[in-house]
Amino acid sequence: MPHIDLPAGVPGIAGLIHYRPATGHLLSELTEILLRGENSLSRGERELIAAYVSSLNDCGFCTRSHAAFAAAQLPGGMDLVRQVADDPDNSPVSEKMKTLLDIAGAVQRGGLDVTPEHVKFARAAGATDAEIHDTVLIAAALCMYNRYVDGLAAFTPEEPGAYSAIADRVVADGYLSLVPARPAG
Amino acid sequence: MPHIDLPAGVPGIAGLIHYRPATGHLLSELTEILLRGENSLSRGERELIAAYVSSLNDCGFCTRSHAAFAAAQLPGGMDLVRQVADDPDNSPVSEKMKTLLDIAGAVQRGGLDVTPEHVKFARAAGATDAEIHDTVLIAAALCMYNRYVDGLAAFTPEEPGAYSAIADRVVADGYLSLVPARPAG
Repeated sequence: MPHIDLPAGVPGIAGLIHYRPATGHLLSELTEILLRGENSLSRGERELIAAYVSSLNDCGFCTRSHAAFAAAQLPGGMDLVRQVADDPDNSPVSEKMKTLLDIAGAVQRGGLDVTPEHVKFARAAGATDAEIHDTVLIAAALCMYNRYVDGLAAFTPEEPGAYSAIADRVVADGYLSLVPARPAG
Repeated sequence: MPHIDLPAGVPGIAGLIHYRPATGHLLSELTEILLRGENSLSRGERELIAAYVSSLNDCGFCTRSHAAFAAAQLPGGMDLVRQVADDPDNSPVSEKMKTLLDIAGAVQRGGLDVTPEHVKFARAAGATDAEIHDTVLIAAALCMYNRYVDGLAAFTPEEPGAYSAIADRVVADGYLSLVPARPAG
């Protein structure tokens, strides 16, 4: 049961966005830019980073959501998402993605865990400054979303169908399709 | 030295906001609403939560910044901020603030660390649902900002004067005075 009086039955962060639309809309815009905006990392790759960080934070709602969004946008589907969650270094992703997942894992532990070596390896594997920047910010943002959802015990559906339904909407129409219009002022 | 090629000499998160204005502006708007918008918690109390979480995350730039912003807006000044960082339960803040700082500390460890007891104590001390919500989101947002700043090794000035100068601007004109205008689109 949620810790505060959230809209009944609205899952995960959507319930929180409806509870506080002014912050909720900004959070949704941030997610849309980071995970779906113009980028040299594909949408699937960015969702994979989001799912990986959420799993490290043990956030059931965010892990299942971003895993479904990643699976829907990557050729490897849910098998690939699971392999990355279990053991990213031995998963069938590119060397560049492995170095970015390493950076994301360091960010999840704490910002000071990201070392010059992490960044050197990422550059050597072909990552640009913009990709390193976005990986750090995506991982940091998920550390916020995960804490927001679980810190208020937001509603986490059990049935897998709930997540594939949200994935259909997010993949087709983006994160802003889930939220009310931007409040004035 | 920053991990990526950030604007030279622009401290902390301001350098990151200039590097990626589209996300930077959203992050600044979020901070402005959470820490300075209309609220039953005072601006000083919210900055105290931000400083406390930043100190738990060992983020030098954010701790010194939010400590300066809190000190400038609370009667107890920097002495109070330091007492809260050292031992919130025995600091001279209200019982309600102690329970909210406890919730913020739990969020810093992880969202699942917030228990029904935390929330029960906060309610018993007079906290509203909106105050509990905002405390969780402020703490979660600082867990993002702290990781963003340190994960990219953003420039952290050593001299205290740098932080009091930023405090003067933030207290007078708000967080959006530090950033470029919202980019189009």
